[in-house]
Amino acid sequence: MSTVKDLLARRSAHLSPALSVHYRRPVHVARGSGQYLYDTAGVRYLDCINNVPLVGHSHPAVTEAVCRQLSLVNTNTRFLYEVLAEYADRLAALFPAPLSVCFFVNSGSEANELALRLGRAHTGRRGVVVLDHAYHGNTTSLVDISPYKFAGRGGSGRPAHVQVAAAPDVYRGRYRGPDAAERYAGEVAAALDRARSESQAGQSQAGQSQAGQSQAGQRAAGLFFAEAILGCAGQVDPPSGFLPAAYRLARDAGAVVVADEVQIGFGRVGSHWWGFAAHGAQPDIVSLGKPIGNGFPLGAVVTTPEIAASFANGMEYFSTFGGNPLACAAGLAVLDVLEAEGLRAHAAAVGAHLAAGFTALAARHEAIGDVRGRGLFLGVDLVTDRASRAPATQLARDLVETLREQDAILLSTEGPGDNVLKIKPPLPFGVADADLLLDAVDRYLTRHGRI
Amino acid sequence: MSTVKDLLARRSAHLSPALSVHYRRPVHVARGSGQYLYDTAGVRYLDCINNVPLVGHSHPAVTEAVCRQLSLVNTNTRFLYEVLAEYADRLAALFPAPLSVCFFVNSGSEANELALRLGRAHTGRRGVVVLDHAYHGNTTSLVDISPYKFAGRGGSGRPAHVQVAAAPDVYRGRYRGPDAAERYAGEVAAALDRARSESQAGQSQAGQSQAGQSQAGQRAAGLFFAEAILGCAGQVDPPSGFLPAAYRLARDAGAVVVADEVQIGFGRVGSHWWGFAAHGAQPDIVSLGKPIGNGFPLGAVVTTPEIAASFANGMEYFSTFGGNPLACAAGLAVLDVLEAEGLRAHAAAVGAHLAAGFTALAARHEAIGDVRGRGLFLGVDLVTDRASRAPATQLARDLVETLREQDAILLSTEGPGDNVLKIKPPLPFGVADADLLLDAVDRYLTRHGRI
Repeated sequence: MSTVKDLLARRSAHLSPALSVHYRRPVHVARGSGQYLYDTAGVRYLDCINNVPLVGHSHPAVTEAVCRQLSLVNTNTRFLYEVLAEYADRLAALFPAPLSVCFFVNSGSEANELALRLGRAHTGRRGVVVLDHAYHGNTTSLVDISPYKFAGRGGSGRPAHVQVAAAPDVYRGRYRGPDAAERYAGEVAAALDRARSESQAGQSQAGQSQAGQSQAGQRAAGLFFAEAILGCAGQVDPPSGFLPAAYRLARDAGAVVVADEVQIGFGRVGSHWWGFAAHGAQPDIVSLGKPIGNGFPLGAVVTTPEIAASFANGMEYFSTFGGNPLACAAGLAVLDVLEAEGLRAHAAAVGAHLAAGFTALAARHEAIGDVRGRGLFLGVDLVTDRASRAPATQLARDLVETLREQDAILLSTEGPGDNVLKIKPPLPFGVADADLLLDAVDRYLTRHGRI
Repeated sequence: MSTVKDLLARRSAHLSPALSVHYRRPVHVARGSGQYLYDTAGVRYLDCINNVPLVGHSHPAVTEAVCRQLSLVNTNTRFLYEVLAEYADRLAALFPAPLSVCFFVNSGSEANELALRLGRAHTGRRGVVVLDHAYHGNTTSLVDISPYKFAGRGGSGRPAHVQVAAAPDVYRGRYRGPDAAERYAGEVAAALDRARSESQAGQSQAGQSQAGQSQAGQRAAGLFFAEAILGCAGQVDPPSGFLPAAYRLARDAGAVVVADEVQIGFGRVGSHWWGFAAHGAQPDIVSLGKPIGNGFPLGAVVTTPEIAASFANGMEYFSTFGGNPLACAAGLAVLDVLEAEGLRAHAAAVGAHLAAGFTALAARHEAIGDVRGRGLFLGVDLVTDRASRAPATQLARDLVETLREQDAILLSTEGPGDNVLKIKPPLPFGVADADLLLDAVDRYLTRHGRI
């Protein structure tokens, strides 16, 4: 068995330095079960951050389904097999009409890539409006539409075909009052307007050059691309009414709406299967990833027959691994377990308990500025000062490291100020686990959290 | 058990019409083993086309490795685990220095996407030179550099930042003589020149507009992106000397060289692990996919420490599933089996036997215009006329359908004329299998192949 030091040395020998690890003293993982990870020394960690193993680490039903299929055959969608049709039926049934056509890929990035292609094929426009701090994936085209990346460290700035609207954050953002939903929707409208006017200006500037003209013309927004609850922006749950209004404005401007449900989909928000549904909004394209196969590499896009038809212009779409029988078996097993174990309702109940617990802590700890989110997708915003709401970045980081070291609790930070405790555990996470986490945070803030 | 008709109906209900299936009467696959697929009626098919299950369908060693890991834990690279470091060590050891830094992703498309990002980060240039008919993947940026897609059905033409050099095809291409390698390298030089001159022209045209100027300036070639043996161009094995010369020219022009080994890597070519090595050439970046995990969704990029350092500019690179323990376990098992079963040498021997067999058939069947390729990556070019070399498209398609119906042999067609029999079986494919295939093709051409 290698030591942590050995493994870090071996990573630096043959793996990219652009990869990062969690914690000053990274966790050397040996096994997992439910909401727990175990390191090679046998220490059990309460996992509050891994949203990918949705139905629990190493769930036996998923293992069994994948292993059974693997021992039979793995192949691709140019052949026929039962489990592909079965999974497409089951997945499509979780979406409101007319969202009914599924595409299967291998990751959330591939899903968002395909969502881009679908939206552009349907509208003939290349422009995209996104929300500030959004992250939509690691490919060239997705870094282009991810302010979290292009405006962050090592980024090369906003591309001309992308417009950014303010994140609808009622705690830290520009608008915090009862009219915030309307005001933030206005910011989306303004971004759509900028896309249109820059497109028109580009066309006239480009003058006689046809290529230049068409390139500039394509800057008009073909897509409004957003998470219903924003992850990288700091677990931001938009004010009620924002999402339906923003979707309506985008459609009025001729764009299609992509709901990026890669982080939050599949019941994590508790009240609904999808974040957009929890907000009473209906997108044209939905992208799925992370928890869809409980960690098996799988992504999907669900869209309308109309948009799927625009994409089927004669060019075959093929993903070698996309929709392979193993992935479909994993995906089906996840849906089965979610239903059999009632995990969506569980997420709603435990999430409400946990959010209430943090709200109660906020009454005693000034450092807790805000508690937000839905179901088991929560954020606890730590501040150095409740009036200014200045991010308590160092406090949040130290808390996370201490909980890892002293309490064997895995937590992480998020948001532009890196001060928001991000809570998105495997869904078996229960009330007793929530109480352990609350108690550990309470103890830490009692010792260190005085403002 | 659904019928083929049922399954096709269910596909059309919830899957994209842009997906295609093999054969007029698609195969409903129930299980696989070695070089065989079995349908739900128990019919055994000799599989001559699935290059993804490299070490054989449902190889028990791969199944066992994945299932063992799946029952323990699946996590991501922000945690530490033994199998990631082990796999990176083992994979890197198969490459000549200084190729030594591995990135893990989930597909060949994701690998080529990352290769693009690496090359652009290193050179600061966006332009790409590719070979005609090349296919490099299904994302927006990869369709842009794939003439097979952008110049094919539903494509929207060559983007300004891409230049296309002729495919180095000595059977159907412009140059067929002893100087073909030099002449085709000259075509690459011309493409690099076009990239440079269009970039300069773009810069002066763009005039005062800084954004326009930098965009046009980036058209200079930052990457030369090519397969060492071309798949979609029709199993084209370039003339000896072409690849080293093209690589040298690309580097002289300031580009880095990407070898797309997604189709041909991991010993399929027999003489070497990699196509570029079989051609005596050394790339700067190698992309891997398809067979790397025997069908488990996995891709990788291997590059030099220098290029990896250019990419590590402060922006974290993270792939949720990339390098997960399951994928690493699958990848390691594939390397173990390749070695334990001597499959590379086997591919060389069986491939030579099969190529010699087709060459012998060519003496009796005028329809066989050319036999080419390496190891178990072969192409048999069918013609209506040996003088004009006109593609026998219909003959090739009918042959493939007949072999599927009457001989239970799975074969496919490839190339711009869709007339090249594409042979790339799982590597357990043996001499007796080769003889079965030769016999079936012989019988078909005896009945139908008269020119």
